[in-house]
Amino acid sequence: MKRYLLAPGPTQVSPEVLLSMAAPILHHRAPEFASLLERVKADLKWLFQTQNDVLILASTGTGGMEGSVSNFLSPGDKALVVNGGKFGERWLRICSAYGVKTEEIKVEWGFAVSPAQIQAALQRDPTIRGVFTQASETSTGVAHPIREIAEIVRQHEDCLMVVDAVSAMGVFDIQTDAWGLDVVVTGSQKALALPPGLAMVSISEKAWRLGATAKNPRFYFNFKKERESLSKNQTAYTAAVSLIVGLDQSLKMMKEEGLQNVFARCGKLAHATREAMKSIGLKLFPKECPSDSVTAVEAPDGFDGQQVYKDLRVKYGITAAGGQDQLKGKVFRIANMGYVDTFDVITAVAAVEMVLKGMGYPLKLGTGVGVAQEILLKK
Amino acid sequence: MKRYLLAPGPTQVSPEVLLSMAAPILHHRAPEFASLLERVKADLKWLFQTQNDVLILASTGTGGMEGSVSNFLSPGDKALVVNGGKFGERWLRICSAYGVKTEEIKVEWGFAVSPAQIQAALQRDPTIRGVFTQASETSTGVAHPIREIAEIVRQHEDCLMVVDAVSAMGVFDIQTDAWGLDVVVTGSQKALALPPGLAMVSISEKAWRLGATAKNPRFYFNFKKERESLSKNQTAYTAAVSLIVGLDQSLKMMKEEGLQNVFARCGKLAHATREAMKSIGLKLFPKECPSDSVTAVEAPDGFDGQQVYKDLRVKYGITAAGGQDQLKGKVFRIANMGYVDTFDVITAVAAVEMVLKGMGYPLKLGTGVGVAQEILLKK
Repeated sequence: MKRYLLAPGPTQVSPEVLLSMAAPILHHRAPEFASLLERVKADLKWLFQTQNDVLILASTGTGGMEGSVSNFLSPGDKALVVNGGKFGERWLRICSAYGVKTEEIKVEWGFAVSPAQIQAALQRDPTIRGVFTQASETSTGVAHPIREIAEIVRQHEDCLMVVDAVSAMGVFDIQTDAWGLDVVVTGSQKALALPPGLAMVSISEKAWRLGATAKNPRFYFNFKKERESLSKNQTAYTAAVSLIVGLDQSLKMMKEEGLQNVFARCGKLAHATREAMKSIGLKLFPKECPSDSVTAVEAPDGFDGQQVYKDLRVKYGITAAGGQDQLKGKVFRIANMGYVDTFDVITAVAAVEMVLKGMGYPLKLGTGVGVAQEILLKK
Repeated sequence: MKRYLLAPGPTQVSPEVLLSMAAPILHHRAPEFASLLERVKADLKWLFQTQNDVLILASTGTGGMEGSVSNFLSPGDKALVVNGGKFGERWLRICSAYGVKTEEIKVEWGFAVSPAQIQAALQRDPTIRGVFTQASETSTGVAHPIREIAEIVRQHEDCLMVVDAVSAMGVFDIQTDAWGLDVVVTGSQKALALPPGLAMVSISEKAWRLGATAKNPRFYFNFKKERESLSKNQTAYTAAVSLIVGLDQSLKMMKEEGLQNVFARCGKLAHATREAMKSIGLKLFPKECPSDSVTAVEAPDGFDGQQVYKDLRVKYGITAAGGQDQLKGKVFRIANMGYVDTFDVITAVAAVEMVLKGMGYPLKLGTGVGVAQEILLKK
């Protein structure tokens, strides 16, 4: 059976990137690699909309998240964590592993955090050293209002704005410098449309300053050491060279398309997916602020969301995603990021219709597809 | 110019592995990937000669080394570290980053540690919780006597034998279970002939038992969590799927060759390289126990080893390695591990002869090549 990958990470990798990574291996200390890394450094600044250094780590995004705690906070420091899903929980767990005390803003799954809550928490406790949040919470399909939160955090001289943008960077607008985001993490296997294995982290001067006294242990994820190496077009330890070769190719393709065009494409695809799902009577899981990265759809009453996920895979060869933890069986999720275009949406919508029909859900085949086509036809 | 990679990591990747990784991406929670991971798990046990779980981490070998400290030792614990080169130093630095007190056995670069020194140190201080060493010290080209050291460490119930086998595993015999090695780390970019980005760590029951009370922070490199995931044919966080697909192919090729045949091949190639170098008047840097992974050769008196390295690259397209730190300019290094065979040695030796001739070193071209051919002709 022909296979289609529409999961919210890893996402599809283009033939161009796959081929670039199939070239013979470069040595990580060779001049050819140094000049490639210099180009990638510049292109990552373009992607992150920043003048900051963007570090490149041989790990998945979670490694970048861990480093964003261990390099900037000491045991006993306090962090404010937005917990509106599985990846919000991950910030809590990392902080806890590193002895960082957390003040948690628990956001009901499906909702976005309110900036006013952040403001109130920071006013109540001026010892908070960092606000940790997701730009896009992959488990719920919700985008948190990063720009508005950052505006509040900027008023606090000793508090960092730390953003998990793993499934957001390269999907919708994240203006690292203009919005004053201090630490921004992404991973290779989402919008960048690469295999998993790279984390990228942008770090502001404010973060370097506050991190200078941070006392948590770190070795593999030692950002200061990575920064020094990067200034010489190297990485501190052996670079994941083939993934970085793929990153170079992926960024080249994104630059050719143009960043605003990438955002517009993903936005349109996500919009079409959402409207198509609604047109066949399904509810989106997000109650507000749906993310353009991934569309989380509720299974109809009396139907098992996990079955939708399974039938998509088994009957039609489509790997989407089910729900995680408390959402298992309640939702299924379809990615709209990376190497995707018009007919990925058409495929996804048609397959969902066919799966639901097969499960006995009443719908007229083609309804959602038609709605998606209408939207995708528009310039 | 045609390029040749003969560095001690990353090493050459075979076309078969490159192609396997260029296939469309598998999702890390898909059943197809789970069954692949199950096979890889079994094959890694074969490679490590162990019944232990072998964890697979999305990081380079250094991440596996960090986890081998943070998962088994607490701040204030004492470790005995064999420091006979750059990677011995790395153990010291990781221990220091994690508050582990170190007793250092400083071994002059070019020499192997004496098991008697280990024995004396452990007798002097029964509070030592782990012995940390390299199986092959890549910076000097020396192999430490792992088997003999392990025999001593086994007598100490509360002391672990931790081996950095990053550039040894799959090159020469490392019998994890038979020798009683508690923690053994390797990486993808050496004998396994994959791009960098995977660490693999074998962990004994003794290590799990002693690690149960270890109190250092860890999150990304949480071995207990990885073990639980691995039992379900998953990884704790997103797996580096394309590298694991390549690992599957690489292990398949090694199994077809047979482990003893792999060792014999690398041993013969290394022997031929060493004898060829000696035949043109060069000295090997190791004064004893040369490793079959990498041949470290001293530049002749009055000649710059860094120039040999550079000329190999610039004039002949060959990426070998120079010397690191105190050996910079004094040695050059050629790898004998991974996807290498007879004519990689012939190429390396011929190129070294041509480079040295070009630098004014007196030699008769073909001398070393002839010596290598003699050895490589033998069954």
